Amino acid sequence: MESWPPGGSGPAEAGRRLRGLRGADLAASASLLSGAGAEAGCSAPAVAAVLPAGGSGERMGVPTPKQFCPILERPLISYTLQALERVSWIKDIVVAVTGENMEAMKCIIQRYQHKGISLVESGVTRHRSIFNGLKALAEDQPNCRLSKPEVVIIHDAVRPFVEEDVLLKVVTAAKEHGAAGAIRPLVSTVISPSVDGCLDHSLERARHRASEMPQAFLFDVIYEAYQQCSDYDLEFGTECLHLALKYCHIKAKLIEGSPDLWKVTYKRDLYAAESIIKERISQQICVVMDTKEDEEHVGHRLEEMLKNELNVQFLDYESVPFGQKMENLMQIREFAKQVKKRNILLYGLLVYYPQDEQKLQESLRQGATIIAALIKERNSGLIGQLLVA
Amino acid sequence: MESWPPGGSGPAEAGRRLRGLRGADLAASASLLSGAGAEAGCSAPAVAAVLPAGGSGERMGVPTPKQFCPILERPLISYTLQALERVSWIKDIVVAVTGENMEAMKCIIQRYQHKGISLVESGVTRHRSIFNGLKALAEDQPNCRLSKPEVVIIHDAVRPFVEEDVLLKVVTAAKEHGAAGAIRPLVSTVISPSVDGCLDHSLERARHRASEMPQAFLFDVIYEAYQQCSDYDLEFGTECLHLALKYCHIKAKLIEGSPDLWKVTYKRDLYAAESIIKERISQQICVVMDTKEDEEHVGHRLEEMLKNELNVQFLDYESVPFGQKMENLMQIREFAKQVKKRNILLYGLLVYYPQDEQKLQESLRQGATIIAALIKERNSGLIGQLLVA
Repeated sequence: MESWPPGGSGPAEAGRRLRGLRGADLAASASLLSGAGAEAGCSAPAVAAVLPAGGSGERMGVPTPKQFCPILERPLISYTLQALERVSWIKDIVVAVTGENMEAMKCIIQRYQHKGISLVESGVTRHRSIFNGLKALAEDQPNCRLSKPEVVIIHDAVRPFVEEDVLLKVVTAAKEHGAAGAIRPLVSTVISPSVDGCLDHSLERARHRASEMPQAFLFDVIYEAYQQCSDYDLEFGTECLHLALKYCHIKAKLIEGSPDLWKVTYKRDLYAAESIIKERISQQICVVMDTKEDEEHVGHRLEEMLKNELNVQFLDYESVPFGQKMENLMQIREFAKQVKKRNILLYGLLVYYPQDEQKLQESLRQGATIIAALIKERNSGLIGQLLVA
Repeated sequence: MESWPPGGSGPAEAGRRLRGLRGADLAASASLLSGAGAEAGCSAPAVAAVLPAGGSGERMGVPTPKQFCPILERPLISYTLQALERVSWIKDIVVAVTGENMEAMKCIIQRYQHKGISLVESGVTRHRSIFNGLKALAEDQPNCRLSKPEVVIIHDAVRPFVEEDVLLKVVTAAKEHGAAGAIRPLVSTVISPSVDGCLDHSLERARHRASEMPQAFLFDVIYEAYQQCSDYDLEFGTECLHLALKYCHIKAKLIEGSPDLWKVTYKRDLYAAESIIKERISQQICVVMDTKEDEEHVGHRLEEMLKNELNVQFLDYESVPFGQKMENLMQIREFAKQVKKRNILLYGLLVYYPQDEQKLQESLRQGATIIAALIKERNSGLIGQLLVA
């Protein structure tokens, strides 16, 4: 099982990035974006992103802030950074973290080889953190290596599944309207309570939407809004689109987003994110056989059976001559430990194939079940084990 | 690993039910509820529940309606029914399903031995389905084996983690106020779009809540509301509390619910539900050793290591004398197949323990990792395998 390579981008990745938008459209719009910078006659990046990541994660019910919670041993925020980094036309990413987590964040950037990230200290509220990120991008800051972008994306560190198409849509709409944001239909009815804790009124669900991320703004619009806005807004507000409306009279364009944009908020969301990531990264399988002649006989039949169960790409068949039995076992375990460092999970499977066709069928089915289980669960605790079908 | 027994209710279950409310409070309130029926001088049930389950699950992006989606091979609705059945003071549960799914629902009831369930045909909308459920409970229906409850709970088939304490709270509040419902803080800001797809205004998040389930009503209140309400309400409305307010002028009491009350809506919610269920059911482990003398030496040290990783109750140590090696393997696989039918997952683990203390420590740690992985993933594809630590 191959890993989702940090920083790497094969054809499968490119395909995933383009999902949901026709390739031609995306290419045309992306070139439009790059073109805008060129027209203005400057080499400054047209688009930057700000990620507030100063939250404490109190709703999660765990001591680690949710953006740093590990998913398959990797912090959530690293997946989000990866999703943004893959978009070639986002030139700078500014992450706002607490002073306390600054060192941890630097380690994450180094460990997962993130590029083009600048760190700023977060404020005590979400709006103050975003404002700090914007200040770092503004031209009037002394000794700043960043340059002012034309459009700035604001995204959450805890929404790791953002796709290029929705980023492009909000950026394009922001260039036209001054502001834009992703929305989703409401899952629950929204109500307004009275002071005594009883229902005052309920809102018609069809007439309202949940405001999600990413959002994008002409930089001058949102920076102006933050400079104008009241302490009350900075302290208790949560919605950037609201600030653009209130202080710059910009009515943001609303863009329908995909369900994957949801915010990792509760512990159950971590479970869901883990399952989605497992599903995405375990799409390639490499079968290593011990003799060439068995390849077609067993390998291809196993492949057919697995295709019904999983959306898996068979990378390759390798033929490796194994030695004596006990040595095999030790060989597999040692090899598994080595390749685990490259995020490849290796398991041994001994397929028993008798002459009897019915028994062989049963044995292969058992093998397929075991392989499917290992791929789905992506369980690193079981690497190097020799399983028997 | 023991199963979450269908219909069974051990001390661990009772403990879980009482979570979040002190036992004495719960007992007192529960007896208050039973008392109400007795005072009225009738043996009729005081509380019934209606579950609309006619949805098509189109948001899930899968062909099976979400309430019938399997989680660990069992349909989601069966977990929800189990959660309601465990509450002794809920006498009847009326489930509204489409004619198309009526037979499937009957099979689920039989397969998982659900008791006290009545089925009615759902309507084309949520409100029409609930109304059909209420009609079945109303006294004026001919040939009906159900009796009219004093209070009716309305819950969703796709919220499987409802606890007794919140059910009790909404029922108690409904008796006092006429209507009550669970609420949760909003995760996202709610906005109102204008007709051109731009932001009209955003709602202050702190002043609004998401209306969740369960809700409870004096039966006469909600039945009256449904009898009075317009076709427009039945067709496009989604909120029962709104109907009680609009047609009976009852301001529902709002009860803060736990995050676990969320509605399984998207595919990611199925993943989250599966992880939560795995976590809940895999809390008991039975270690079977092959020789008595090793019990303390290895078993207890393994137990200590596992306690750091998992919240697991060690049920028992059993000593089973195994025979020859190959026979062991076959014995384990055959036995695993047998006990799988009782929802017990059995795996073999060969712990290599050398004299060298450091190597032993490493071997035990490896064993603990494997056991933890098996418990966490609850993977039935790997039952009967002999793993090596």
